[in-house]
Amino acid sequence: MWMPSQLPQLAKELQAAGFKGDPADLANLTRHPMSAVVSLGGCTASFVSPQGLVVTNHHCALGAIQLNSTAERNLIQDGFIAATMADEPSAGPAARIWVTVGFDQVTDRILADAKGKTGRAYFDAVESAQKAAVAACEQDAGHRCSVASMYYGREYYLIKQLELKDIRLAYAPPRAIGNYGDDIDNFMWPRHTGDFTFYRAYVGKDGKPAAYSKDNVPYAPPAHLTVSTAPVKAGDFAMVAGYPGTTFRHRAASEFANQIEWLLPTRVDIVGGMIETIEAATAGDKAKQVLYASTLAGQKNTLKRAQGELDGLRRSDAVRVRAADEAAMLAWLAKQPNASALQADIRAMQAQLDAGQATRDRDFLLPLLRPGLLGSAVTLRRLAMERGKPDAQRESGFQLRDEVLIEGGMKQLQRRYDPEVEKATLRYALKRYYALPAAQRIAEFDAAFGASEAIASSSLDAIYHATKLGVEADRLALMKAAPDAVLASSDPLMKLAAALQPALLRLEEEGKRRSGELMRLRPAYMQALIGYRNSQGRAVYPDANSTLRVSYGKVSPLSPRDGMDYRPLTTVAGIVEKNTGIEPFDAPKPLLDAIAKGDFGSTVDPTLKTQTVDFMTNLDTTGGNSGSPVLDAEGKLIGLNFDSNWEAVSASWMFDPRYKRAIHVDMRYLRWLLAKVYPAPHLLKEMNLPAE
Amino acid sequence: MWMPSQLPQLAKELQAAGFKGDPADLANLTRHPMSAVVSLGGCTASFVSPQGLVVTNHHCALGAIQLNSTAERNLIQDGFIAATMADEPSAGPAARIWVTVGFDQVTDRILADAKGKTGRAYFDAVESAQKAAVAACEQDAGHRCSVASMYYGREYYLIKQLELKDIRLAYAPPRAIGNYGDDIDNFMWPRHTGDFTFYRAYVGKDGKPAAYSKDNVPYAPPAHLTVSTAPVKAGDFAMVAGYPGTTFRHRAASEFANQIEWLLPTRVDIVGGMIETIEAATAGDKAKQVLYASTLAGQKNTLKRAQGELDGLRRSDAVRVRAADEAAMLAWLAKQPNASALQADIRAMQAQLDAGQATRDRDFLLPLLRPGLLGSAVTLRRLAMERGKPDAQRESGFQLRDEVLIEGGMKQLQRRYDPEVEKATLRYALKRYYALPAAQRIAEFDAAFGASEAIASSSLDAIYHATKLGVEADRLALMKAAPDAVLASSDPLMKLAAALQPALLRLEEEGKRRSGELMRLRPAYMQALIGYRNSQGRAVYPDANSTLRVSYGKVSPLSPRDGMDYRPLTTVAGIVEKNTGIEPFDAPKPLLDAIAKGDFGSTVDPTLKTQTVDFMTNLDTTGGNSGSPVLDAEGKLIGLNFDSNWEAVSASWMFDPRYKRAIHVDMRYLRWLLAKVYPAPHLLKEMNLPAE
Repeated sequence: MWMPSQLPQLAKELQAAGFKGDPADLANLTRHPMSAVVSLGGCTASFVSPQGLVVTNHHCALGAIQLNSTAERNLIQDGFIAATMADEPSAGPAARIWVTVGFDQVTDRILADAKGKTGRAYFDAVESAQKAAVAACEQDAGHRCSVASMYYGREYYLIKQLELKDIRLAYAPPRAIGNYGDDIDNFMWPRHTGDFTFYRAYVGKDGKPAAYSKDNVPYAPPAHLTVSTAPVKAGDFAMVAGYPGTTFRHRAASEFANQIEWLLPTRVDIVGGMIETIEAATAGDKAKQVLYASTLAGQKNTLKRAQGELDGLRRSDAVRVRAADEAAMLAWLAKQPNASALQADIRAMQAQLDAGQATRDRDFLLPLLRPGLLGSAVTLRRLAMERGKPDAQRESGFQLRDEVLIEGGMKQLQRRYDPEVEKATLRYALKRYYALPAAQRIAEFDAAFGASEAIASSSLDAIYHATKLGVEADRLALMKAAPDAVLASSDPLMKLAAALQPALLRLEEEGKRRSGELMRLRPAYMQALIGYRNSQGRAVYPDANSTLRVSYGKVSPLSPRDGMDYRPLTTVAGIVEKNTGIEPFDAPKPLLDAIAKGDFGSTVDPTLKTQTVDFMTNLDTTGGNSGSPVLDAEGKLIGLNFDSNWEAVSASWMFDPRYKRAIHVDMRYLRWLLAKVYPAPHLLKEMNLPAE
Repeated sequence: MWMPSQLPQLAKELQAAGFKGDPADLANLTRHPMSAVVSLGGCTASFVSPQGLVVTNHHCALGAIQLNSTAERNLIQDGFIAATMADEPSAGPAARIWVTVGFDQVTDRILADAKGKTGRAYFDAVESAQKAAVAACEQDAGHRCSVASMYYGREYYLIKQLELKDIRLAYAPPRAIGNYGDDIDNFMWPRHTGDFTFYRAYVGKDGKPAAYSKDNVPYAPPAHLTVSTAPVKAGDFAMVAGYPGTTFRHRAASEFANQIEWLLPTRVDIVGGMIETIEAATAGDKAKQVLYASTLAGQKNTLKRAQGELDGLRRSDAVRVRAADEAAMLAWLAKQPNASALQADIRAMQAQLDAGQATRDRDFLLPLLRPGLLGSAVTLRRLAMERGKPDAQRESGFQLRDEVLIEGGMKQLQRRYDPEVEKATLRYALKRYYALPAAQRIAEFDAAFGASEAIASSSLDAIYHATKLGVEADRLALMKAAPDAVLASSDPLMKLAAALQPALLRLEEEGKRRSGELMRLRPAYMQALIGYRNSQGRAVYPDANSTLRVSYGKVSPLSPRDGMDYRPLTTVAGIVEKNTGIEPFDAPKPLLDAIAKGDFGSTVDPTLKTQTVDFMTNLDTTGGNSGSPVLDAEGKLIGLNFDSNWEAVSASWMFDPRYKRAIHVDMRYLRWLLAKVYPAPHLLKEMNLPAE
């Protein structure tokens, strides 16, 4: 996950891997291909025509497709083809496309005022410098700016993005193509999903970003990607560009050990118990089951992910491997001149990490100790505290612009709350809390909930019986009521929140102090790591942080287990094999008919003699890379990234080349669908592609 | 699944496939290698030393291993190595090894008296001729004889087998090797099971079969197999010999359609409903759950198998393929001289099959309408009826020698019966019965159970409340009571059985009549099929019937689904991957240590550079082939067959070369275990194999 600016220094490796272009071009964000790679916020997309046509994943555009669906015209189910540009509906007022136009090192500027400070003061100085840099940058209308911390505070980059606000829907396949296999196939290979959708970006007649207007015109991007018409096969060079979310690969060995030996097993244990608790509390009661269906699905997904990540990290022997790597780094460092300052900072960093782990059991339980309704009481009090301040001074998350989100949460709770179930989950969390050693207990919590688990458990009935917070209107009223009145509320749940709040504020403050210290100290660790890697002739990318990154590799099979191989390409035969007629394996009849007909035209694979669907590479990706363009050796678009394999769930911590694969829609499948199945000849023509 | 006698006519095909021996040798049952391939009754085994050492599957020898286990010495868990022959314990008085010594066509003799007869008379004539042939053959002491019908009554063979009665246990690996993966891995590939065990056959000092005696001596077989020391790799020639149970590949197209479109879906439906019924009737009651655990496990296995068979037959498009094949055969037949007699018989056969299908719904329900205790009442009455006759004239299954088995059933029922649950299952079956069209209803059943489902359901309570049959001693007493007294019993369940019995006897008689007709008519169908196949230059094997058969092919990978390949060999790495420490994936520490040590000696695979475990071929096998020797091009022993893949569950009806694979223990894994993990150097020496 290289920063584009790092690629020129990797020229040799890129060329050895098969890249045919000039690596220096990849560092230039204003030129092809990087200027064609855009962010949707959480997803990636790319321009594929001079008229602002954008391709991304179906799952990234699902909200826009849903928004344009009606009872009569279900675009999710049936798909959508805009016959002309005039037929392209808005993707909604919140839809955005961000085009990165600036990516500049501003480390000195951000750290100027932080130098010499520690803890909370360091944190505040950095935050304040970031806010100033962003504000100055955003003077350029039509742009959004942000400061990204690279290598955990070692470097800071000011990122400037053109913000396109009029996004429209041009083409979407039916759900049973775009999301064929859904949750069952999620993370799975072999895969047969046509996970793509086309948007188009529009701007004002002056060419500047503008909100939706009928008078707007298609945006002419500075560059767009060319869709390849060549076949794809195992071993081919591949490259992905996009906005990957978060990775933890450069975390300290102790953090790896904590993740694998404590956090993930604890999550499996406690979330597993929580699932049992909710299932028992809703057993035999359909209404309660409906209220908690979404919560339960989320918990089960969390549990599955945690187990998958744990299995993967154990399979990669990650604790031992990372510990040995760190030990080698420290041994190398010890031999360097003037190592002592770095060593001291690394020791101090380790002390902060150790201190954090000392209360890890309690910290894990804290969110569970303020579920649903009790959580809303805590939020209402905090909002009341912040509402008294000027907006700019309010705590992040409690500013004016956040109130819509908070109100949404207060409303949504009504569809996800039952007092008996909430008490059951709270009792489950309290049972765990009261089993903690004294050093991890919190005086205010003990006082508020009660001296023992039994007392706490029994007091809940009275509190939940008497509270009026369960009434949506009463909760919403407290969002608008005079802050003093909110803080003085005699509602028993508000009083419980009041009793907990001093501790929560103290822990929040302590968290910021520790964050500040880690921001100050981690750069020493990263400097040692970079130096050590460089001494081995290797470069280091910063952990992913939703900024533009590039990874290169090749189309790759996978041996997930002894005796088993996954081929790197799937074909339409697999769609038929999986088809049951029942969602999510309910391939549409036109697709099944077209497969049976076997007329694959120019998109047929010359070796397999059939139509490919998806392919797999060893590219380095993570959440946020959804929709990312996959390019061939000549920089042409061969695929859209949309998933990883199950064996790679652990890759956010450790990239294990034996198991990490990325899953892409083959652009030939997309072309075939547009040519023969759900035809959009005008889009093929716009992309300069064969009509069949 | 060729009869050995067919192999000389397949000489060209065998040699083209890579067989290096003389195909004529394979037809000689008294010579190597066929004389070394023996039956255990339901399993196959083979001699591997001149001193009667026999190798088969662990799961085939499980009963003998269990028999020799004690509370202190659990041979299933720990495995067993007899240090010397004197330490080899008996496999039990019922253990047998049958060596086929004769396999002669006796068609004319069997059909001599049946000619010109039809229906029940034809059936009786054939049965009587078979009994006479068996009796004459068994005059030779120490032998068991049987008559096998080949090609569904077209040919009859008299099979003569030497019956060895003193079988002893020589070596068994621990369960966690011999049954690594158990039910979870059953039918699955990649596989990592060391499913083997060694027996030794003993005879009297005169060399003749004898019951167990300390004075017996090891049996010197006329031939034994040589274990290969060469590597095994994809594409290698392989051949399996053994005693496959039952296949249905030459059934008529209408029987295929019935199986796939009616029987299997109906089984899935009704067994699924039965599982729900039993689960609901035992919910919340541990004692009842224990009583029905075995029944439920059996039903779930039946359901899974039926679903797997259905999926496989649909995947192979078996209805259409078989119908097209039969149509082509009939078209060919129509052009042959003198076809009319065959055509008439085939039409008559089809009429019998159609008539059978007319009552298929009711016939499926009949066994469910006499579950557990009611079933035992029916059996007690029938036994009483037969007990009045001379033994030779008693109905098969109700002769003197069968009484032990019947008594065992009467006793076992006590551990598998609860009146409330039985009533629930009976009500479930009655609900289905009363929904049948009038033409499929049975007058005696309507009269006995009641005029409607409601009446039948309510009368059950009184019957089960008043019956004494639930008491084991009372059931056993009725086995010995005077037949007239049994038939006149006033016990309400016995009276219900009495009311049902005339219909059951009538249907049994009708079944025999139809069997006789099909025995008479199917040979015409088989003659047409054989003629048609021969006209295409192809030979036809008879459907499997537990007689000695041979299949040849090669070591083969499998592509079970689009985008996925199974390699043909697995390695010890997979044992470690699967190991969880929890049964059935609890590899023993000595095995894990030996894998970690990596000392594979002479059994290391020269290409994979590690120890192989199991391998896969495209050989044609079915139940009964468990333990079958897998031979290489030179007739040397390279593996032991022990399972098929899940994709091949449907192979008993249709052999689809794309999906049918057989799964074998690699003899190199066996050799490595004997050399390095659970050492038995004396056995390696006896088999003339390297000590390490």
